Amino acid sequence: MTELTIGIDGGGSSCRAAVADATGRILGRGTAGPSNILSDLENSLVNIVASAKNALSDAGLSPETVSSVSAVIGVAGANVGDYGERIERALPFARRRVVTDATTALQGALGDGDGVIGAFGTGSVYNARHNGRLYGIGGWGFVVGDQASGARLGRDLLEQSLLAHDGVLPSSPVTRTVLAEYGDDPERLVEFAHVARPNDFARYAPIVFQAAAEGDPVATAIVKNAITSIGESLDALLWPECDAICLLGGLAKAYRPWLSERHAALLREPKGDVLQGAIDLAIKFLREEGKGAA
Amino acid sequence: MTELTIGIDGGGSSCRAAVADATGRILGRGTAGPSNILSDLENSLVNIVASAKNALSDAGLSPETVSSVSAVIGVAGANVGDYGERIERALPFARRRVVTDATTALQGALGDGDGVIGAFGTGSVYNARHNGRLYGIGGWGFVVGDQASGARLGRDLLEQSLLAHDGVLPSSPVTRTVLAEYGDDPERLVEFAHVARPNDFARYAPIVFQAAAEGDPVATAIVKNAITSIGESLDALLWPECDAICLLGGLAKAYRPWLSERHAALLREPKGDVLQGAIDLAIKFLREEGKGAA
Repeated sequence: MTELTIGIDGGGSSCRAAVADATGRILGRGTAGPSNILSDLENSLVNIVASAKNALSDAGLSPETVSSVSAVIGVAGANVGDYGERIERALPFARRRVVTDATTALQGALGDGDGVIGAFGTGSVYNARHNGRLYGIGGWGFVVGDQASGARLGRDLLEQSLLAHDGVLPSSPVTRTVLAEYGDDPERLVEFAHVARPNDFARYAPIVFQAAAEGDPVATAIVKNAITSIGESLDALLWPECDAICLLGGLAKAYRPWLSERHAALLREPKGDVLQGAIDLAIKFLREEGKGAA
Repeated sequence: MTELTIGIDGGGSSCRAAVADATGRILGRGTAGPSNILSDLENSLVNIVASAKNALSDAGLSPETVSSVSAVIGVAGANVGDYGERIERALPFARRRVVTDATTALQGALGDGDGVIGAFGTGSVYNARHNGRLYGIGGWGFVVGDQASGARLGRDLLEQSLLAHDGVLPSSPVTRTVLAEYGDDPERLVEFAHVARPNDFARYAPIVFQAAAEGDPVATAIVKNAITSIGESLDALLWPECDAICLLGGLAKAYRPWLSERHAALLREPKGDVLQGAIDLAIKFLREEGKGAA
């Protein structure tokens, strides 16, 4: 049965899995709850396995088949301490390889090629593959990092709205909209900000982009500030011959028109998503296995 | 016994009180625990009264004298909802007046004159008195405000240190020192930042100023950024004829040499501190009382 393999994206909001054969044909797909291995290893393992079993069921196979297939699992934090090894040991697949979510995202977006990816959602993080080696920067969370994240865009908007309320900086349509949302009471805005989590701040990101597209000066300055940070981070990873940049995540499309010409010239559509990257790696893994046995 | 009066600074780290007579002579001083009326009204009231009783004891008087003296109490939050009234009702003094800490800080720094004050400690806040009217901006906390606070200086330093670690921005002596403090492990720095409270970040403020004084480019940029924010906030409160700016708080001295020439030209030494402001107001209050009775 090791002619089947499973690619798994162990993501922070859900685990997604797909069963494929050695030709790359996808036979079934499954999802399960989230994987956050650094904060909850036990449930993450349960959900990773559940997504695989659901994919096997979807392919018309018994969930118990997990113990006779190979699998590649991409999870955030696999490179932290001995987490990767611990997960590999704990999983029930006949053969398994645990890699970081950066590895699966790079594989999904770039296939086997070299290039740089930037992912922009609630957080922001950058990865590169150059001559087969992986490099990663950013992703340190919104308190002291993630400068181009949705969370930071939202936090910036609230900060600028307070400065506009105080008359320290000019107000704009978007700062007036934000203050109106809190009944023009800055104390209510501050109360929200002091309990808000990154995804609470990030819900303002679409509002920032919408206002910037309409020429709002405060929103435009916030987006330009984030774009400067994106440019600096891409430059930290780029090398002279690199000809591929992929922007990923929920805010990728919104950032695209703001990117510098120099970086925009290198933009490529991602070949596939993170799960596709995990599937690709799972198929390679299966083929290696085949060769090893030959 | 109403020829005696007590000025009280109900501060967030301690309450300080002084007993004075109508001529302004200080007869005794006392301290007690903190006052944070918005988060713990009951204990704040206990500490305010305790500081007054301690001041009376210091003056050789019975603590019970509280019920026959007048008092002015300055506390943060006295202008929020009905807190001011509730405190006035609850306090045992023969006559009492509750004002905000901005009022006592302005009185202490400027006496009866007009002017603008900026206070820089763990937080940052600005107040002005113009033709007897009070104006206040800032002080919204470090998450979305307090741009020139010690907490923001520290948070900025940690953020720049991570960017330097990632090679996104050039490193400097101070970013290398910060990273070394965390064993050159950015994850340890991020862990600290995610549990740090404003005063934890603020402990880096002296390091930022020291490095900036030595010409460190990262620290210099952080201080200049804060000074830009200070300039914008002062300008929001200043009026053409205003000729007095006082900088208060633990970071006031450190910011002084960085201030723009235009603002530096208006700098005045504060006449006294917040407690002195409370004492001044308490003496005025006592004299008003005397006039009222005449």
